[in-house]
Amino acid sequence: METEKINFLKTYLSLYISHFAVLADMKKADPEMVVLDVRNAPAQVKKNQIKGAVALAAKDLADHLDELDKSKTYVVYDWNAGTTLGKEALLTLLSAGFKAFELAGALEGWKGMNLPIEEI
Amino acid sequence: METEKINFLKTYLSLYISHFAVLADMKKADPEMVVLDVRNAPAQVKKNQIKGAVALAAKDLADHLDELDKSKTYVVYDWNAGTTLGKEALLTLLSAGFKAFELAGALEGWKGMNLPIEEI
Amino acid sequence: METEKINFLKTYLSLYISHFAVLADMKKADPEMVVLDVRNAPAQVKKNQIKGAVALAAKDLADHLDELDKSKTYVVYDWNAGTTLGKEALLTLLSAGFKAFELAGALEGWKGMNLPIEEI
Repeated sequence: METEKINFLKTYLSLYISHFAVLADMKKADPEMVVLDVRNAPAQVKKNQIKGAVALAAKDLADHLDELDKSKTYVVYDWNAGTTLGKEALLTLLSAGFKAFELAGALEGWKGMNLPIEEI
Repeated sequence: METEKINFLKTYLSLYISHFAVLADMKKADPEMVVLDVRNAPAQVKKNQIKGAVALAAKDLADHLDELDKSKTYVVYDWNAGTTLGKEALLTLLSAGFKAFELAGALEGWKGMNLPIEEI
Repeated sequence: METEKINFLKTYLSLYISHFAVLADMKKADPEMVVLDVRNAPAQVKKNQIKGAVALAAKDLADHLDELDKSKTYVVYDWNAGTTLGKEALLTLLSAGFKAFELAGALEGWKGMNLPIEEI
């Protein structure tokens, strides 16, 4: 059972990327990551987003895959970690052959640590 | 590893049902779903619940399976998505041969979207 | 697919321990569990912790495994259930052969139920 738990945890954790990795990439001259805001909400409800994020609602993602760049790594996030939208988007991206991760802690965690956001 | 991630995500997401699906079913003349409030708390602590939900605490669920209807689909929820109670209830229901899902976002998400609740 | 869901839920739930089990152990003359606060934050940010917890940040855990006791059961927790830090710590502990669980609901759930905490 311990092996099963360990394998489960490894796969679970392999879906996520930490804010540290995202912040470090943001500082690069040529960032490898694109942060995707996959919230299914209009801008007036969202009000703000992670600095530099691209808004692409999870419900529209499958129809816009041809606008994405296979050389990039996509980091998806939803409002908080309690929703399944980030994992739905992640499944769509991985199934289409993109490199993708979910942001650990989601937007709520990002804001809780006072990391850079921007008004929209 | 990508296949492993994809399979993990598919199984994970297959446990959940969205509020969209639950709301659509609620509007049917003959709904297929029964929403189960599995919170282990008395009514005066819970104060309100999802409209039309049946209160059946997770700790009591195993003793009341014979009162449930195999022709229905059960949708369980707890206070929020950070607890394990919904998944415990789901395991009990699936193991007993019921069709069952956990409500994505739990009660917190439902209230956050101002979906119908009722006082209890 | 139901078997797959059931196995997934069993493994998922086997990673967690409830506050009931932790509270019951705390009352023993010779507790078997050690509660590990794995938050990556200084004491002035954490302000308080679960009563009797040992602070050992997830980022430092791998370097301090030789200070832990294989006869104990470790219960790790982070701020809330939406982070991945608890699961990272759990993976480190299980991989090193320790008995370990993540506290269901994390610190947020513990405080929400008014369970014993202490200033630090």
